[in-house]
This record gives sequence, structure tokens and C-alpha cells, in this order.
Amino acid sequence: MKRFVLGIDIGGTNTELAIVDNEGTIYDGFNVSTHSCEAFEDYIALIGDGITDLIKRNHFDGKIEKIGVGAPNGNFFSGNIEFAPNLKWKGILPFASMLEEKIGLPVVLTNDANAAAIGEKVFGGAKDLADFVVVTLGTGLGSGFFVNNQLLYGHDGFAGEMGHAIVSSDKKRVCGCGRYGCLETYVSATGIVKTALEKIMLNPKESILKSIDSDKLSSFDIYSAAKNGDAIALEVFDDTARILAIALANVVTITSPRAIFLTGGLALSGDILMNPLTVYFDHYLLKLYRGKVNLLFSSLIDKNTGLLGAAALAFNNN
Amino acid sequence: MKRFVLGIDIGGTNTELAIVDNEGTIYDGFNVSTHSCEAFEDYIALIGDGITDLIKRNHFDGKIEKIGVGAPNGNFFSGNIEFAPNLKWKGILPFASMLEEKIGLPVVLTNDANAAAIGEKVFGGAKDLADFVVVTLGTGLGSGFFVNNQLLYGHDGFAGEMGHAIVSSDKKRVCGCGRYGCLETYVSATGIVKTALEKIMLNPKESILKSIDSDKLSSFDIYSAAKNGDAIALEVFDDTARILAIALANVVTITSPRAIFLTGGLALSGDILMNPLTVYFDHYLLKLYRGKVNLLFSSLIDKNTGLLGAAALAFNNN
Repeated sequence: MKRFVLGIDIGGTNTELAIVDNEGTIYDGFNVSTHSCEAFEDYIALIGDGITDLIKRNHFDGKIEKIGVGAPNGNFFSGNIEFAPNLKWKGILPFASMLEEKIGLPVVLTNDANAAAIGEKVFGGAKDLADFVVVTLGTGLGSGFFVNNQLLYGHDGFAGEMGHAIVSSDKKRVCGCGRYGCLETYVSATGIVKTALEKIMLNPKESILKSIDSDKLSSFDIYSAAKNGDAIALEVFDDTARILAIALANVVTITSPRAIFLTGGLALSGDILMNPLTVYFDHYLLKLYRGKVNLLFSSLIDKNTGLLGAAALAFNNN
Repeated sequence: MKRFVLGIDIGGTNTELAIVDNEGTIYDGFNVSTHSCEAFEDYIALIGDGITDLIKRNHFDGKIEKIGVGAPNGNFFSGNIEFAPNLKWKGILPFASMLEEKIGLPVVLTNDANAAAIGEKVFGGAKDLADFVVVTLGTGLGSGFFVNNQLLYGHDGFAGEMGHAIVSSDKKRVCGCGRYGCLETYVSATGIVKTALEKIMLNPKESILKSIDSDKLSSFDIYSAAKNGDAIALEVFDDTARILAIALANVVTITSPRAIFLTGGLALSGDILMNPLTVYFDHYLLKLYRGKVNLLFSSLIDKNTGLLGAAALAFNNN
């Protein structure tokens, strides 16, 4: 029997909402600009009214079981969004309880990377896996861990922040968190641009990247250049892959997952990233784990991972 | 009501066995040299006969519920000891099934660091904690993780090997695992000696350590020197604490534990280690976790952690 939930994917720019069924089919939905309202209360009201309208116009009254939300710095335990640096509203935002009050449906919330992991478990390539990791390579680097068939929340709901593992002890790269050398300052859409800018400056080799204004250089430019055989761009991917490989090999020593899934914008680089990554991962992995850990792209990589993850949270939590 | 199990702590040198009750009281027991037998079968027979005798002479017939074992490279899922570098028998050793057959009691087995974590949960300072880590600082560095009230085994039973997280990308320190730069090559009784030897060579400062034959220098010598204010020895502890602090801060980003317990020989250094460690840990910890994670010594540090851990496994697994 088909079951239905509402998925909400809150991003720094857009908030996307849609009805999703238990097979991962996305039905009607809508978007609002995350920052269209000055007050958080107004944002909740805007979303709430939109949901009421969505349900009504699709004749889904009484059919939606639950609302699942993926949000930056979302805390599953509290249902709050806590100190999200990319949102205009500061402090602790009781998203779940406020929307619940407005709509009268149960609301569960977690952070976007955890939602991606639950999406992989419910709708993606991890259906049969008890222990796996999903790494989202976007503006930053997010991660969600399943251990023993459960999402790993930790004592405070904030487990799975491997983007903030410190991987370099020099003070070259400052992170949004205020510290230096976090993994995401190297391995993310923004990190790879920093690596490229460093290499452009220091490396005498010719490169198409040198013709791009440094303010405008994007991870996609680096990908395109690498795809065309640009030596510096390929070096940038090689460096990035090596750093990610060590970080993943280190993660394996903690949770020993059966698989690691990569998703997010930078993961769309495909073989350009995966080929060197696989070689380095195998090289750096402790022998005990060799041949046991699948390193692959998310099977939802070309789908709406955010929405599916949010919906999966609602289904997973029944 | 008092309940009884038998704990077995298999070390590279000695195998220790004793009857333990559910309050952590250790009763009669015995030791055998782990390497006294050429064949693994003979070792099992020796232990088996010893257990039969132990039970008989204490009139515990029918009272022992289970046997718990902590072993190097012990795998809880299989009950095997798998490729333990410090044991003379190579390959896969089906310890649990062989002892079960010999004795007729159920045998559960895990690695020594996992046993230490279970010991902390059942008998120690983690009784009320769902999410915590135990780090054993001995010849190597072992770790056992509890998440959501369960020991973290991973898909293959080998989770919790943070001693083999790669913390340095230079090739200065080769690890017993064959790779370079593992945490335990810096943070362990052997790692700290290596750091001291490097410093002695490079640092012109006077140090009592310079009067000790480099082949004989031990972590206890470094501790004693640091305790007496020796500048180089204090630097060695400072470096070691800094490396451990970053590794622990990184671990927190994965599992978000409520507490981290240190135990093992090097942990007996007390304040000499803990004072700089606390400062660095606070410095390197992601803000999100600050003030939430207790860093402390195991409450079993002056007890027989190995035996208690093994016994705790038997109780925990009922």
C-alpha cells in the first residue's frame, strides 16, 4: 500500500517541499526562498500556508503521515535548527515544534547529511546495509553514519561532522568554524577552488585555469579543465582525492562501514574524482579492511537527494 | 543475587583467568604464559584444564554462566582471534568455539580495547553513559566505542581501531601495520619513546634522558623525568598530548561521545599527560561540542582492567 509523507529540504538559498511516497516517487511540491522573510515566525507561516494549500489542491487531506525535514545544523533530538551559519536567523530555531503547531502533523528533523544517509538507506544503494557512511561534497563537506542499522546521532544529536576533522596542522586554511585545517577546507566545492588557486600561483605549467578570473573560478571549471586533460586541474583532483582518501581510511578505523557513498556537487565529477580516490583509498586503508569497504557514488546522486532524504527520515522514523 | 562468569584476558605475554561476579569482584584465578605451547590446540587444552580445576577447587560447579574473553585482534562476530601480530600462532584462531567445545560453557570474545570499553560500561565510570569512548594507551593505542548504549562493532567486527588513524603524512614513523604515520606510532608507550629519542638528538637542552641508553629508554623514564621538571621530557609529553588531542577532537566529530576515558600504562602518567591534553583538546574541539565532552581517566585504571573487561563482556552479552 502506498504511503505518503511530506519532505522539506532547507538550503541556504531555497526551501523545497514536496509530497513523497514510500517508493521514493516525488509528487507535487513547491519552493520558497529561505531568506524571503525577516522573521523566522513568518517563514514558518509561509511554509505552513503553502503546505495546507499543497495538500488541499492535491486532495491529500488525511493522507500525509508525517513531515520529514533536512536542515543545516538540524538536531534530531530537539527538532531545532541550532546556530546554522548559513541562515539569517541566529541562535536556536524550534522548527519542528513550530511547524507541528501550525500544521497539526508530526514533524521530524535532522541535518542535511544525515537526511542524505537515511535517503540512501530507505530509497538508495544502502537498503541492505547496516553499516555505511554518506559523504556530501557540496559547499562544505557533510557526513551521515549508519551503524548497526541506526543513524549515528551521538550523545547530543551532532555526530557525523567529519567535514570538521582537522587534517592539516599548518595554519594555511581557516574554516567557517573558526579553526584551521578542517577536511572541508580542502575537500568540498570551495576547498578544491582554494587548492586550484594555490597551484595556479605556484606552478609554472600552462593551464586553462590561469585564464579564469580568480574570483570567479568554480569547482565546475576545475572539473571541466581536468576532463580536458589540463595538468594543473588533474593535479588538483589528485591532491583532493589523496586528502579525502586518508580521511575516509581514518573514518573506517572508527566505524568499519561496509560502504561509503559520495554525493553532492563535487561528486558529480565522476571518474575524475573516483579514479585517483580509489587508488589512494586502497593504499591508505588498514590491511584489516582491504577489499571489504565499497567506495561508490550515491545511487541517488542524480535525483533530488535533499527531498528524498527528508522524506526518508519521516518514513524511517515511523 | 550474585552472578558469576569467568574472565580471560589474553595478552602477548600472559593469559590471565579469574572468576568475577556481577559487582566486579575478582575471585580465584590463575595465569599461564601465552606462549608456553607450540600448538594452539595445546594452549586451549592447558586453559581448559585449568578452568575445570579452578571451578572444582572453588566449588563453583554449575555457577559460572559464561566465559568472556578479551584478546588481541579478537572478533566478537566470529569468536576468532584474527591475524594477531603479537601472538605466535598466525592466521585465524577459533578461540571461542574451541574453548566452548572443551569446557561446555558459552564463550564470548572481543578485542582488548572493546573489552575495556565494556568494562567501563558495566563496572566503571560509564554506567550511565550511552555514548563514550575508551582509549587504551599501552604498547599500542586501542579504542572501544559505545554508541547508543551498544558497543560499536562495524560491519565486520573490527570497528574502533583509531590507533591506526593516519595522523602524519610524512614517512617518518612506520607502524606495525606496515603503513606510516598511524596515531599509535606517536601516542603510546612506544610512540612517546620515539618522540623522546628524536628530541634528545635534536635539542641542545640538558636532559636526564640523555644519560639513559637509547635502547633502554622507557615511557616510565620519560614520565619520571617530566615529573622532575626535565624540559625535554615535558616537551615530549606536550607534543604527545597535542597529537592525541587532535585525534580525539576528530573522533568527536564522528561519534559525538559524552565522555572519553583513558587507560593503560601511559595513562598512569596522570596530570603530566592530562594537563596539556585538556588544554589542547579544548583548543582543537569544534565549538559545537565544547563543554559537552568529559575527558578523564578510566575509573578502573588502577584495577585489573583486562579481566574486568572480559568478565563485563560476558555479563553485557546475556
